Amino acid sequence: MSAPIIHGGGITAAAKAYGGKPEDWLDLSTGINPNPVAIPPIPVRAWHRLPDEHLVAFARKAAAGYYGCGEALPLAVPGTQSVIQLLPRLADRSRRVAILSPTYGEYARAFELAGMAVDKVAGLEDIVADHGLAVVVNPNNPDGRAFASETLERLWKRLRQQDTVLVVDEAFGDTDPSMSLAPRIFEMPGLVIFRSFGKFFGLAGMRLGFAIAEEAILRRFEEWLGPWAVSGPALSVAEQLMRSDAAPIALAIAERRRGLAVVLEEAGLMVSGGTSLFALVTHPQASALHAHLCGDHILVRKFDYAPHWLRIGLAPDEAGDRRLAMSLRTWNAAQ
Amino acid sequence: MSAPIIHGGGITAAAKAYGGKPEDWLDLSTGINPNPVAIPPIPVRAWHRLPDEHLVAFARKAAAGYYGCGEALPLAVPGTQSVIQLLPRLADRSRRVAILSPTYGEYARAFELAGMAVDKVAGLEDIVADHGLAVVVNPNNPDGRAFASETLERLWKRLRQQDTVLVVDEAFGDTDPSMSLAPRIFEMPGLVIFRSFGKFFGLAGMRLGFAIAEEAILRRFEEWLGPWAVSGPALSVAEQLMRSDAAPIALAIAERRRGLAVVLEEAGLMVSGGTSLFALVTHPQASALHAHLCGDHILVRKFDYAPHWLRIGLAPDEAGDRRLAMSLRTWNAAQ
Repeated sequence: MSAPIIHGGGITAAAKAYGGKPEDWLDLSTGINPNPVAIPPIPVRAWHRLPDEHLVAFARKAAAGYYGCGEALPLAVPGTQSVIQLLPRLADRSRRVAILSPTYGEYARAFELAGMAVDKVAGLEDIVADHGLAVVVNPNNPDGRAFASETLERLWKRLRQQDTVLVVDEAFGDTDPSMSLAPRIFEMPGLVIFRSFGKFFGLAGMRLGFAIAEEAILRRFEEWLGPWAVSGPALSVAEQLMRSDAAPIALAIAERRRGLAVVLEEAGLMVSGGTSLFALVTHPQASALHAHLCGDHILVRKFDYAPHWLRIGLAPDEAGDRRLAMSLRTWNAAQ
Repeated sequence: MSAPIIHGGGITAAAKAYGGKPEDWLDLSTGINPNPVAIPPIPVRAWHRLPDEHLVAFARKAAAGYYGCGEALPLAVPGTQSVIQLLPRLADRSRRVAILSPTYGEYARAFELAGMAVDKVAGLEDIVADHGLAVVVNPNNPDGRAFASETLERLWKRLRQQDTVLVVDEAFGDTDPSMSLAPRIFEMPGLVIFRSFGKFFGLAGMRLGFAIAEEAILRRFEEWLGPWAVSGPALSVAEQLMRSDAAPIALAIAERRRGLAVVLEEAGLMVSGGTSLFALVTHPQASALHAHLCGDHILVRKFDYAPHWLRIGLAPDEAGDRRLAMSLRTWNAAQ
């Protein structure tokens, strides 16, 4: 059995170890928009009734518009995690699994829990005929490595010939739709795209994601999840927000991202990657820097497998940027 | 592949067939409290952040108090349906499954989808050593058949000797806690209890249920569901409502149930079973009566496997009772 992965959001544990009230900490350990979009009014009906056909259909149509996949209605799922858990059932168990790594740890964990052999591969060319299923997170978490859609389309073509299912996780893709394969899903059978709702909209607690794939694959996910997998309130909120103009949200995120970039640059830290929602810093004393920041009640993400990395998420406002900048100044002064 | 089950709540389809706006129909096709409890204030944090440890822990503690199972913290799950889907993984695949029947159809469907052999048994004595897992819904849906906790404890003892997992679904058990095995869970390893949050509180759209069992079993469900399976808003609402006084909710349900009982009695219908949230009517022309009610835009539940049954849920108010009574009078006048 794989050990559980400690994800971002461990403020409670950090506050226990370093003091302070959890709500007074600056949480930069996640890859979630720090400013949640205002929740639109949710009809009582959405709370009361089992999510019925038309509530689901409306949300799926709104998602199709938002992701640009036209008539190929994305399947609403209770968080991408719920379909990651199901991937072992989609894969040919007699073949190995390739995961472009390092990346989001729950992929390897799900396959290993199911007793499947996982190859953490470093490049797309390492995905070979042995592999029945391959996972590429694009852009990648935590290093921000990104592939143009043409590159992944070539990969898909090659994998198709060897009957390998390609899973592309576009959880951090909302701010750059040009990289998404969603608009091409009709021409790409065997491709599975995962999209996250909560990261961009800042509503991760709502548990909503979408799977985009050919109908036969979506039907299997649907069957495995069972009826009413997504809550009525989540469907209602998603439908309303995905039909609204997302540009102001993207602008606000970009502004927060620039704030973070300036702080890291002024502190002289080496930014080795990132996405619109976090920066990856490479530092020879990453662990000591992590502890220093914790001393100032600022939580960033460190990685067991990459001791020189810190992933730093967005502060909700300029005051947060200043707080991080101040802590980095005292760190630099002490070196 | 089993065909999907058509559940209560098919108002959209009914309105398409019989006319009228869906929202103008009287929906008596579900077993859900027709008067949803008011949603308490949900902190923005619950929408924004991934549901963290302490949000989950608070909800589990509130549920333990509510279900009377003390230190045995129930596992929050995104609707009972989500763990029904997982039961085939809990069962010994080399043995058969017994389901006390007729009952909620998703049990048989989940095992059949997983390729397992299901025996729909008529009595507890038909659960034998062949069976690796047995399901008893108590009180049962749709016939209201109920067993005293002592009877199920004797069953559990017998099944324990033959290493059969006993699943008791107490989805309709909130109004009679004396029937629940939850307070005895500590002494009953191998027992799995499912509880529904949405039926009693009238919040089925929220997707929340609880599994009560020994820690080793809950850990397996937890692992299969993956992290953050339940939404933050659901955890927050559950924690607040399960700590509040549930007596007024039970009283209101009981009043609505009496209203339904009076209408059915005055119409001369034979009530052959039920729970606090629905009545089961046996009628030689059940299908024609169903159609007659649809003509008046009232939806009740009929059953393919039991053509003489109609399950009738609670109307939200006395006006709803009168509407049903009126329709039954015109039916009786035409006979």
